[in-house]
Amino acid sequence: MLLLYRGENFDPNFYYHSGVDIDHSFLLSSGKKRILLTSKMNESLARSSFRGKVLVYTDAFELIKKLAGRKKVSADMLSLSARMAKRLGKVCHLKDASMELLSERARKKPEEVSCIRKAVRHTREVFDSLDFKKAKTELDLKKQILLATLEKGLEQAFEPIVATDRNSSFPHYRASNKKLGSLVLVDYGVKYEHYCSDLTRCFILGRDKRKESEYERLQDVCNSIVDALPELKKGKDVAKFAGKAIARQKFSEMIHSIGHGVGLEIHENPRLGAKSDDKIAGTVLAIEPAFYFPNKYGMRYEETVWFDGKRARIL
Amino acid sequence: MLLLYRGENFDPNFYYHSGVDIDHSFLLSSGKKRILLTSKMNESLARSSFRGKVLVYTDAFELIKKLAGRKKVSADMLSLSARMAKRLGKVCHLKDASMELLSERARKKPEEVSCIRKAVRHTREVFDSLDFKKAKTELDLKKQILLATLEKGLEQAFEPIVATDRNSSFPHYRASNKKLGSLVLVDYGVKYEHYCSDLTRCFILGRDKRKESEYERLQDVCNSIVDALPELKKGKDVAKFAGKAIARQKFSEMIHSIGHGVGLEIHENPRLGAKSDDKIAGTVLAIEPAFYFPNKYGMRYEETVWFDGKRARIL
Repeated sequence: MLLLYRGENFDPNFYYHSGVDIDHSFLLSSGKKRILLTSKMNESLARSSFRGKVLVYTDAFELIKKLAGRKKVSADMLSLSARMAKRLGKVCHLKDASMELLSERARKKPEEVSCIRKAVRHTREVFDSLDFKKAKTELDLKKQILLATLEKGLEQAFEPIVATDRNSSFPHYRASNKKLGSLVLVDYGVKYEHYCSDLTRCFILGRDKRKESEYERLQDVCNSIVDALPELKKGKDVAKFAGKAIARQKFSEMIHSIGHGVGLEIHENPRLGAKSDDKIAGTVLAIEPAFYFPNKYGMRYEETVWFDGKRARIL
Repeated sequence: MLLLYRGENFDPNFYYHSGVDIDHSFLLSSGKKRILLTSKMNESLARSSFRGKVLVYTDAFELIKKLAGRKKVSADMLSLSARMAKRLGKVCHLKDASMELLSERARKKPEEVSCIRKAVRHTREVFDSLDFKKAKTELDLKKQILLATLEKGLEQAFEPIVATDRNSSFPHYRASNKKLGSLVLVDYGVKYEHYCSDLTRCFILGRDKRKESEYERLQDVCNSIVDALPELKKGKDVAKFAGKAIARQKFSEMIHSIGHGVGLEIHENPRLGAKSDDKIAGTVLAIEPAFYFPNKYGMRYEETVWFDGKRARIL
């Protein structure tokens, strides 16, 4: 039996397993039997959208005790707060299934890939719509990005990163009122039906042969990693291959990992670190080679990639 | 000693006690001594913005063991995941301080009230800018709200609720492509420097004496509650007073609580339920009397109010 909870915030596992996004609700699922426990306030929404049985709780813990009291209950200990887990632990026997839940979501179904593909397409269109002549500062450009997203009726997958010149040397920089200089790094993605996309582009304004060549080599690194995926099995294999490809181009060693899984969360499994045994077949990956000259400038190039186990395709 | 963690998402207690919002960082604080443990990637950001000592971790748990190993450590078990609490519990002795942390944040400092006041002012301006002639559907109006927020360089405190006619009878409704009818309920707030605001207005388009009178009486209920605050002590006193005021106007009993505290979170302490012993002096409250005729229509009127313990002021 699986127990998932969606409190104040969107919960990827709750949505994945229930198909709905209803606040302060519990999903109890066992085989094909699915029960949604929700509040009086959300009852009509639940009844009209959830496929399964809907129960309205006054005391959710009492109800869970009745429904699951004697069974072992798998729960997501990465999402449940320590306090909620303690309260639930008093009415049923919880075991941590968070790693299994992450692995399950890592392998994407065709309809999930389709959502991510659409999210990527919309993000590309947002990038294409940027008008550097009308943007004086990083914040101006950020506003263009958010406006374009809003015009599409979509939401951001994460707050856009817009970093010019020296600011591009900080990988987690956001945006300020700094005037746009000769280099602008933009890292952004929109969501489509809760599924994320993640792309990074650098814009070299004016001629700069050195930077242009560096950016081209970074794109080559990204493409070579994508091409190599069918020969690789685990996250650590990707990390190792990428490390070599980056060294071959004489870029400095990466200070963040070469990428990550993308889905209902912007960062999810498989992990692509040097120690990751996560399998990459059937997953969607953000591949983002980068280099950073501290306090000078940095560049990053990122694609969202679908690897079905045989072929790897840039979405 | 207090230990707080900010992972992927904004954490109100981490921000409140550290003054910074840096991902994947721990705050260890004891009296005036404050240490921020952060990743290599966020080091420069931490050093330039955090007032206190910055340590870069490779293994955060090892470092916490060294710094806090023998002491009792207060932690926020409402925010820490069960999994993170388990890992931390292996390197130090955690005790749950989440209720104390919530109470502490409930009493607002002048600079916090000032931020909320600005957030409210901006939200009022967003409401004032709405152009019903240019909005055909709920989603059109939602877009106007989000555009106005973006133009101000601000972020939403929560997703706007735009509900017309029958949809206004569902308190947690969001927005759809339904055409705007004769009644439109809008519930919205922006954030100012991480502080939230929360207002609800109903717009009666065209003449409808009955609805106009109902809305007026709802505003009277709201004002009478605000006026009564200086005579009240606890959350349950507000609930009781509000219940009577609503009954006096012959509105049906509320299906949600009469309001909630507002601050770094849109819903925070004090709670205003029938059982709440939370003190209201020194807090900022959203007061939101409402009535709902199931499947017909509903109305809600909401103000954000600062009660310094003597006087209550609508912000």
